[in-house]
Amino acid sequence: MMSLLLKGAYIITGDEKGTVIDDGYIGIRESIIDYIGIGYEGICDRYERVWNLKNKVVMPGFVNAHNHSAMTVFRNYADDLKLMDWLFNTIFPLEDKITAKDAYWATQLAIMEMIKTGTTAFCDMYMYMEETAIAVSEVGIKAALGRGLQGDIDTKDDFRLKESINLYRNFHGSNKGRIRVNLAPHSVYTCTMTYLEMVAKLAWDLNCEVQIHLSETDDEVRKSVAQHKMTPTKAADKAGLLNSKTIAAHCVAVNDNDLEILVNKKVNVVHNPSSNMKLGSGIAPIKRMIDKRINVALGTDGASSNNGLDMLTEMRNASYLQKVVLKDPTAINVDQVIAMATSNGAKALGFKNTGKIVTGYSADIIVIDIEKPWYYPRHNIKSSIVYSGCSKDVETVLIDGEIIMEKGQMLTIDEEKVLYEIQRAADDLFL
Amino acid sequence: MMSLLLKGAYIITGDEKGTVIDDGYIGIRESIIDYIGIGYEGICDRYERVWNLKNKVVMPGFVNAHNHSAMTVFRNYADDLKLMDWLFNTIFPLEDKITAKDAYWATQLAIMEMIKTGTTAFCDMYMYMEETAIAVSEVGIKAALGRGLQGDIDTKDDFRLKESINLYRNFHGSNKGRIRVNLAPHSVYTCTMTYLEMVAKLAWDLNCEVQIHLSETDDEVRKSVAQHKMTPTKAADKAGLLNSKTIAAHCVAVNDNDLEILVNKKVNVVHNPSSNMKLGSGIAPIKRMIDKRINVALGTDGASSNNGLDMLTEMRNASYLQKVVLKDPTAINVDQVIAMATSNGAKALGFKNTGKIVTGYSADIIVIDIEKPWYYPRHNIKSSIVYSGCSKDVETVLIDGEIIMEKGQMLTIDEEKVLYEIQRAADDLFL
Repeated sequence: MMSLLLKGAYIITGDEKGTVIDDGYIGIRESIIDYIGIGYEGICDRYERVWNLKNKVVMPGFVNAHNHSAMTVFRNYADDLKLMDWLFNTIFPLEDKITAKDAYWATQLAIMEMIKTGTTAFCDMYMYMEETAIAVSEVGIKAALGRGLQGDIDTKDDFRLKESINLYRNFHGSNKGRIRVNLAPHSVYTCTMTYLEMVAKLAWDLNCEVQIHLSETDDEVRKSVAQHKMTPTKAADKAGLLNSKTIAAHCVAVNDNDLEILVNKKVNVVHNPSSNMKLGSGIAPIKRMIDKRINVALGTDGASSNNGLDMLTEMRNASYLQKVVLKDPTAINVDQVIAMATSNGAKALGFKNTGKIVTGYSADIIVIDIEKPWYYPRHNIKSSIVYSGCSKDVETVLIDGEIIMEKGQMLTIDEEKVLYEIQRAADDLFL
Repeated sequence: MMSLLLKGAYIITGDEKGTVIDDGYIGIRESIIDYIGIGYEGICDRYERVWNLKNKVVMPGFVNAHNHSAMTVFRNYADDLKLMDWLFNTIFPLEDKITAKDAYWATQLAIMEMIKTGTTAFCDMYMYMEETAIAVSEVGIKAALGRGLQGDIDTKDDFRLKESINLYRNFHGSNKGRIRVNLAPHSVYTCTMTYLEMVAKLAWDLNCEVQIHLSETDDEVRKSVAQHKMTPTKAADKAGLLNSKTIAAHCVAVNDNDLEILVNKKVNVVHNPSSNMKLGSGIAPIKRMIDKRINVALGTDGASSNNGLDMLTEMRNASYLQKVVLKDPTAINVDQVIAMATSNGAKALGFKNTGKIVTGYSADIIVIDIEKPWYYPRHNIKSSIVYSGCSKDVETVLIDGEIIMEKGQMLTIDEEKVLYEIQRAADDLFL
């Protein structure tokens, strides 16, 4: 792909003003957006290819800022269970049986689902992250990857930490910068303070992002207080983990003091409304965070606690959940959830100039077919996408200007093979 | 259609036991299911047509138990507003401008969206209900229709009441029983007690269902107490409205005493989770109602307060909302939400032998294409549909055994014409 002009679409730019351009033009040269506007005489001649996208919606690709991709293999295996039952009696024993190959196919499945529903970048924390990085490279999606760290030993010999460092050396900045690597301590209650401090120092030395589960549930807070004599947020801060560019998933059970720490340390919060709902974790005070100018991104969490990787559903749930808990339909508006699902996520993950359709930004762009009854009549195209839209209507996906999906056809994944292999892997695991 | 055999699908029966049949057979003769099982030698010969549905999911069509179909015309017109702002400053002034023809096309749009997302029956309360009934008849969907009644006058000369009686006479039981007509007082706070009593007596005389908005918000309760000196539930009961077969939409702001009345009067409650979330109304105590054996159905409410007519989303939100507010992931399980969206709704609306795939029941059946990444791997087909599924994957819809949609093609609606006409109607209204 050298240059491409997208012509005639409704453009949701995702910029600060919430600009929408009807019958707009987007010029793409190499991997970058080099023109946006209403077009002019002769603009078509400047581009090698021209796509007529009349009556389509074009918007920035979604950034899924919290995921455990390989957990697609557990999707719908154990639902409607108490959290500790689910985790300790179902998921953990199964995780011991997963092979590197299983993780590879499960990640391919996750990426396929993400691309088909309009996600162009994601954050991942799990094991077998080299296989994840390979799957990511093959498909061409952007990803911020961290090997999950659980440290009950206070030594640098921890194999997970070694895997993290190798992942960083082998993959950080690879695939033309589409892969970033971070450090991913699972949570403060699954690590000792010494271990957390060691991770914090390493992150500082590498100047990389840190991702962590933070205050997901009341129970986590109780465990943290028992173990560290302080809340998870305070413990993470004490360990030095919030001195790096930190991505904190969940932040459901946070008190006023925790919020002040998140503000002062400029922590990026990732809200996962569907997972928090399905697991009964609680409702994060997202409206308060946004009012305090915390950068709030959105994530799906893993497919076994959601049970899908559909960012449009997360956008709707994020908005509706704040509206209902605060009994205020104005609590969060469409522009805010669009930012959460795009530019805020890109910022959290460390991808520069990503998540908006403005000149100079990466051409991470999705095209949505709106010739469906749920998009009629057309009054407000942003409301239409966020409140009535279906992510399965995404038909085309560009990442860094590269066509990853075109009119529903995945160009870099063998769909049938992925579905076959993941079912085989699941059958092997569970039989 | 004389007889049809559906062969080889995963069947979610929706029966009391939550039975699923893998590689199952469903025989349909005239409008009725006359066989269900794993098949036998020679069964194919007994049916004129045989459809091979290997690797598809077949389940009962959804029953949308609370809707205002014609409000699709306002979809996405006024979002993120305070309820009273939205209703009094936006919707009510616009409603005065709607014509019968607008209502007809808006209802066609709503029915098209419902069929495409797997809904085979719905309940409707609005104006221009003759046009609604005509649209319903033309498409072949099942519907329980009531002319919205707002009585600030204490006389039988109310034109809305007259329209109700005419609607009942002209349409109740029509289209081979697919249309039922009920009485639909809007709410206790928009009617005087005398008017409510008059409606209750008429419902008793006609032996028809009554539908009403009940305790949707805290504000409604305050208004009812100011006007009637009692809660909406108590006021409805005092008027005699709960002596008929009553369908009460919302029931968000109900106290213990209200719940006891709903139990004793065997009122059918319709939960509308997305609308309650989006408008900031609050969270109905659905888990408590189910524990008290109240028949709880599900609805979308009108498209301007949702903003779609997608029952699968309502199922998921109903489950997730109870889980998160009670901080209990076991609060509601998949079998319970499947019942809410199918047989409980049919029961509430007065459609006999409807909403389950069991012999002797109406052949109201949907076929879902599950060859998509979000349905993989396959562990639990019910979880897969409810927690990971997308209603837009519904490909075929039968109502009373009649094929309404086949592989995505609507057989009884001119899709392009509907989209054109609704946009024209909206443009006329808003310009």
